Amino acid sequence: MVTTEITTSATNVIYVGQKPLMNYVLAAGKRLVEDGSSVLIQARGRSISKAVDVALITVDRAKGGVKLDDIGINTEVLPGADGSPLNVSSIKIFLSKP
Amino acid sequence: MVTTEITTSATNVIYVGQKPLMNYVLAAGKRLVEDGSSVLIQARGRSISKAVDVALITVDRAKGGVKLDDIGINTEVLPGADGSPLNVSSIKIFLSKP
Repeated sequence: MVTTEITTSATNVIYVGQKPLMNYVLAAGKRLVEDGSSVLIQARGRSISKAVDVALITVDRAKGGVKLDDIGINTEVLPGADGSPLNVSSIKIFLSKP
Repeated sequence: MVTTEITTSATNVIYVGQKPLMNYVLAAGKRLVEDGSSVLIQARGRSISKAVDVALITVDRAKGGVKLDDIGINTEVLPGADGSPLNVSSIKIFLSKP
């Protein structure tokens, strides 16, 4: 059972957005080396595909040093341009050092 | 721990691609009503975001009748246009009736 909400104490959150893919991969790798044992990769909407790429490339580059821990998907309700609520899918991918 | 490979006996696989979102939502809903207790939603590359939308809308529309069971992400190696291997991210989202 995958929860739609991951509660975590990780402060190492990488928000994936419009920048090139490798920016996020390098940021995730750096955080894992410098700041602790885990990183949470988050994205909304169309950036979800890129977040999955970032997670898989990060795990692959670590050559066994980082594992995919948990994945959660959720619907977030954001205020739309005209003020009406807008449902946007989001993903959280939790990576950790084994 | 989320596995990168989900082994399942489900034959109810919905491949999410270029068609409009609601085509897949309706297909997933239909399969769950007619053909059994589970459905696997799969996508590659940029369609991953749409697959997440399909899964969340399907769960939401079922009003408690369908739950998010498991999510797996993986890298698939496909032959590229010039014959060289191409790494593509993929997602599998497993929905079932409780």
